[in-house]
Amino acid sequence: MALIVQKYGGTSVGSVERIREVARRVATYHQQGHRLVVVVSAMAGETNRLLALARQVATHPSERESDALVASGEQVSAALLALALQDLGVKASSFLGHQVRISTDSAFGRARIRSINKDRLLVALDRGTIAVVAGFQGVDSDDNITTLGRGGSDTTGVALAAALSADLCEIYTDVDGVYTSDPRIVPHARKLERISFDEMLELASLGAKVLHIRSVELAKRYKVPVHVRSSFADVEGTLVVEEDKPMEDILVSGIAHDRDQAKITLLRVPDRPGLAARLFGPIAAAGIVVDMIIQNASADGTTDLTFTVPRGDFDKALSLVKGQESTIGAHGIATDLNVAKVSIVGLGMRSHAGVAARMFDVLAAEGINIQMISTSEIKISVVVDEKYTELAVRALHDAFVAPRTGDEPRQGSTP
Amino acid sequence: MALIVQKYGGTSVGSVERIREVARRVATYHQQGHRLVVVVSAMAGETNRLLALARQVATHPSERESDALVASGEQVSAALLALALQDLGVKASSFLGHQVRISTDSAFGRARIRSINKDRLLVALDRGTIAVVAGFQGVDSDDNITTLGRGGSDTTGVALAAALSADLCEIYTDVDGVYTSDPRIVPHARKLERISFDEMLELASLGAKVLHIRSVELAKRYKVPVHVRSSFADVEGTLVVEEDKPMEDILVSGIAHDRDQAKITLLRVPDRPGLAARLFGPIAAAGIVVDMIIQNASADGTTDLTFTVPRGDFDKALSLVKGQESTIGAHGIATDLNVAKVSIVGLGMRSHAGVAARMFDVLAAEGINIQMISTSEIKISVVVDEKYTELAVRALHDAFVAPRTGDEPRQGSTP
Repeated sequence: MALIVQKYGGTSVGSVERIREVARRVATYHQQGHRLVVVVSAMAGETNRLLALARQVATHPSERESDALVASGEQVSAALLALALQDLGVKASSFLGHQVRISTDSAFGRARIRSINKDRLLVALDRGTIAVVAGFQGVDSDDNITTLGRGGSDTTGVALAAALSADLCEIYTDVDGVYTSDPRIVPHARKLERISFDEMLELASLGAKVLHIRSVELAKRYKVPVHVRSSFADVEGTLVVEEDKPMEDILVSGIAHDRDQAKITLLRVPDRPGLAARLFGPIAAAGIVVDMIIQNASADGTTDLTFTVPRGDFDKALSLVKGQESTIGAHGIATDLNVAKVSIVGLGMRSHAGVAARMFDVLAAEGINIQMISTSEIKISVVVDEKYTELAVRALHDAFVAPRTGDEPRQGSTP
Repeated sequence: MALIVQKYGGTSVGSVERIREVARRVATYHQQGHRLVVVVSAMAGETNRLLALARQVATHPSERESDALVASGEQVSAALLALALQDLGVKASSFLGHQVRISTDSAFGRARIRSINKDRLLVALDRGTIAVVAGFQGVDSDDNITTLGRGGSDTTGVALAAALSADLCEIYTDVDGVYTSDPRIVPHARKLERISFDEMLELASLGAKVLHIRSVELAKRYKVPVHVRSSFADVEGTLVVEEDKPMEDILVSGIAHDRDQAKITLLRVPDRPGLAARLFGPIAAAGIVVDMIIQNASADGTTDLTFTVPRGDFDKALSLVKGQESTIGAHGIATDLNVAKVSIVGLGMRSHAGVAARMFDVLAAEGINIQMISTSEIKISVVVDEKYTELAVRALHDAFVAPRTGDEPRQGSTP
């Protein structure tokens, strides 16, 4: 009999009927003798509805009030799930951030959890009560309501599992696991039974939207096994765990892609010390996350400096760069919004040489030009022209993960 | 420059546009230099929407979860009003029950306020910030969310005014004050400029729905002047204050009526000590509020005992009475759902004899039979056949409050 934290996303609790379905699933676990903490997101669409109201009353809604406003969404779904559970004859209570107490810093809209008081939840569990916790929210030291930002309810789930030393954190979502690639691009992508925290981190940060990177980081730090699975089908999903045994035969676990990329190049910059600091200081100060940076020194003492940012930050980044252009001494700025990042991820790369070379070969064979390269111990990313995204993903998937067999249906894929 | 608590009801904050209107009104007060605490109800319809969701997930929604659920409604309107105020360039913060801290008992759905911590609100006011407080809600000693029941936001407003020793509590609603009678029945009813707490208490309990009786009780106890006024028109409303000077020329302040009455009579009960206790003990234990009770001893040692209850409690009360019928020794039970209570209320009655006699004369002249009579120092109530309600109210209004003048439009009244 285990202590299990389950997290249900917005679509899983998107209607009264779905809340009742979730209640039945939770009650089944409860009847099996498990101790359960259930974290819920707001009903699908509710957060956007509330934010739309905020924008109707204020041109620039303040973060503190926006957090108090949207946190009501999880309050509603938590209370409704507790009611639905009680209706099935099991004991259940809802808990908000201030009731659990999930303490955060005061960074409204993107707060980070500082500590969780597990006492009240343990009292409930000891009484045989299912604790339904409103995800996404906490309180700062002044009792202000804070929200955790994107992927916040995943983070709540994993953080609670860590605080309670839960045996497992199940993340119920609208997909049934982590795939070797996006099935919309690679129809024969297969579901991974098991993946390491490190691989999942790379996949999460590279655009596989299944599990938010913050919750994976947290799971890795506190060694919380996470089971990503579907709330709409009763099948096993993907278990995200500590790397427990070498799986040398598996070189690459997955191919990820990310179209949310924009490229900025400063042309023929005098190659002097301090250049990067002067350029990227203001960009970091503006809260823009720079992803890849490459710099090629030329023989004439100048360098082309290229970096990528999320497309939503492109305009801001460009104006900051333009402000620095003359002091840095660049001879022009080039930009490209039609780029995408394609990555291969796998623990197996650590002990295999030549993976990068093989990756470049595969892309070259398809006539895909590589614009930028970035590598880590367990991943290799390349920036390519956006129009080659699907072609690159499919070619790399065939080469590294699972070659398409002849008898498999093509399902519209055009390799 | 005063400290003012303003309370806005559900229709006053029923849409984004109305919230912006309320913000403009509040901002005007703020610019005049007043220190402001603003209490809001949920947007009109929201509480019912949430309760409907609860009933869709659970046959008998539990009170704790229902309170957590509906309290989100005031959370939303408080945050939106704070945002709308900020948009007008004034400092504003929303506060929930647990943030203020409004401590209540644990009677979910009908909690009573035990104490209010004013410190946090005073800090906000001292900084020139308008404090927007979610009405209707508090927290018990275990930090569970509670709601205050009917009229809860009025109660929050008056209780905050009392705790803060505010100069005034303004209750903004969809009517523009307290009238001498229901204008739908008496078209020439006039708005009272001023009324005492005691008179308002009698009027509130007698069916004038403007201000909930709990908030009037609270205002009286803590001597909080209450201004009942319209949020849709910028006119003076009615000031509810301590009786400050004798107003001997005004005999009757208002005529109230209440159709929410049902009458139960036990026939020919042996008139023995302990009868009332045996009968009304179980009724009180069931939470039914008995309003009027009369008992007429006859010569044969039996008595007819008649009492009234709210119509919604009639079935429950009747079955309890039937359970006692044989032990009490009654010779039958008579019931009547077609009754109404009509009352005249006024401080002036204290020092004027003969008011009751004149009231009975007026009703007799209209051919209205009086079924029950109940009096207090400042009111006289009679139960009559429901069909005479309007006729009785108009006749009493003409006789005691404001005789209709010949040149006044009749507006469909048929005296």
